[in-house]
Amino acid sequence: MIIIGEKLNGSIPSLGKAIAERDSALIQDLAKKQAEAGAAFIDVCASVPEAQELETLKWMINLVQEVTDTPIAIDSPSTRICVGAIPFCKRPGLINSISMEGNKADMVFSAIAGTAWECVALLSDDTGIPKSSEKRLEVFDALIKKAGTYKIPPESLHVDPLIEMLCTSEDGITKITTTMKKIKERYPTIHLTGGASNISFNLPARKYINRAFIVLAMSAGMDSAILDPLNKDMMGLIYATEALLAQDEMCIGYINAFRAGLF
Amino acid sequence: MIIIGEKLNGSIPSLGKAIAERDSALIQDLAKKQAEAGAAFIDVCASVPEAQELETLKWMINLVQEVTDTPIAIDSPSTRICVGAIPFCKRPGLINSISMEGNKADMVFSAIAGTAWECVALLSDDTGIPKSSEKRLEVFDALIKKAGTYKIPPESLHVDPLIEMLCTSEDGITKITTTMKKIKERYPTIHLTGGASNISFNLPARKYINRAFIVLAMSAGMDSAILDPLNKDMMGLIYATEALLAQDEMCIGYINAFRAGLF
Repeated sequence: MIIIGEKLNGSIPSLGKAIAERDSALIQDLAKKQAEAGAAFIDVCASVPEAQELETLKWMINLVQEVTDTPIAIDSPSTRICVGAIPFCKRPGLINSISMEGNKADMVFSAIAGTAWECVALLSDDTGIPKSSEKRLEVFDALIKKAGTYKIPPESLHVDPLIEMLCTSEDGITKITTTMKKIKERYPTIHLTGGASNISFNLPARKYINRAFIVLAMSAGMDSAILDPLNKDMMGLIYATEALLAQDEMCIGYINAFRAGLF
Repeated sequence: MIIIGEKLNGSIPSLGKAIAERDSALIQDLAKKQAEAGAAFIDVCASVPEAQELETLKWMINLVQEVTDTPIAIDSPSTRICVGAIPFCKRPGLINSISMEGNKADMVFSAIAGTAWECVALLSDDTGIPKSSEKRLEVFDALIKKAGTYKIPPESLHVDPLIEMLCTSEDGITKITTTMKKIKERYPTIHLTGGASNISFNLPARKYINRAFIVLAMSAGMDSAILDPLNKDMMGLIYATEALLAQDEMCIGYINAFRAGLF
């Protein structure tokens, strides 16, 4: 499982305050802890007005790179900002995110073509978020075709099929797991990702929904997730699921992670 | 999910002591709490020498029936004892368990034919526990054929495909989930059950393996389990999984269970 550590996000009140006050200690502490907990990428989202976003990201990315070699996930709703922050990174990371809306995919693909940069791709386009699994797969087809024209290989893409709230769903997570399974069947090396906590919006005791969702999504092929690697209950469950799904021979990864105190 | 409350088992040291000392208060307290937590059956296992087993079960079953109307699961390795304890029960319950070994199935099926009693059936026979999924399905075929001769309907059977230790498995839980899916495809009304904690034997932090297993097994069709209904983390995850698998319209069951304090 590829963990994209979510804690350096300015939309989290304590982090927003740290950014506003330029509190580098908190940011470096969370970067280090997430890396030690096994994050493959440290997500960095400023969540400030766009005029200050690039300089804020530069400051945050530099802080992270002072304490860990774990690659950065540049997180911004603006594709221009995502591409603009690439030169701040010492090593290839992850762009979070593009979609098939407007020229977002072209902008990012042309910037990362021929490099080891990876990118999160949401299955939405100019018409918004498709309702059915079939329509999402059509958006996926257009995405993979465009990636091909830039020679972006499937393994550089983290496809986010857009996890919606369970509380208003009529078929549980069937739509999302169907979409995931079909994509993974066709492109076994592509990554499937998502924000693990969207699913539980508006429900009580959200942690149970989030945890059960991760297990079920992993069983449908999800191999990448934006979540909190410091949450030991979640991490224990993820390592356990890898072992149960035969992705961890003789449970060695599970046992080693336990011994390392990750859960 | 049909929860078979596992706490009244003499092999648990504190419970074994309560049985030896005829401490009725602990037994009644655990019976009541498990019923309130949503157990569909209260499992009663004496775990004493066979010569004292029937009288011990009678004492335990009477205690349970004084405090709750939740049916009993009579739990003994001896089929003779299981059948012998049926008359102690005020209402139809569950026999735990039979297999295709010797005349166990015949003894129990002839005793419960034409009644509302249900029965846990392990997929083993005189040759032991079959190694492959195919061989287990052969044992299942023999079981369902025998049940048919006694007119025991599929919905009275809780088939336990025999969950083995993950730590020595070469394919994770593939064998068990394959067996479950195939049985459920052919008999949609049959119940699939199992001891939820066997899977984690010999591994550290067993709770994570047990929890992830329940979620994955439910997704493969498991709808019955022998576990501790007082474990709120496990129960929260089970209610969450039902909602995610579209078995709980608009998450009503999840929300109600949360409001009732079940997790």
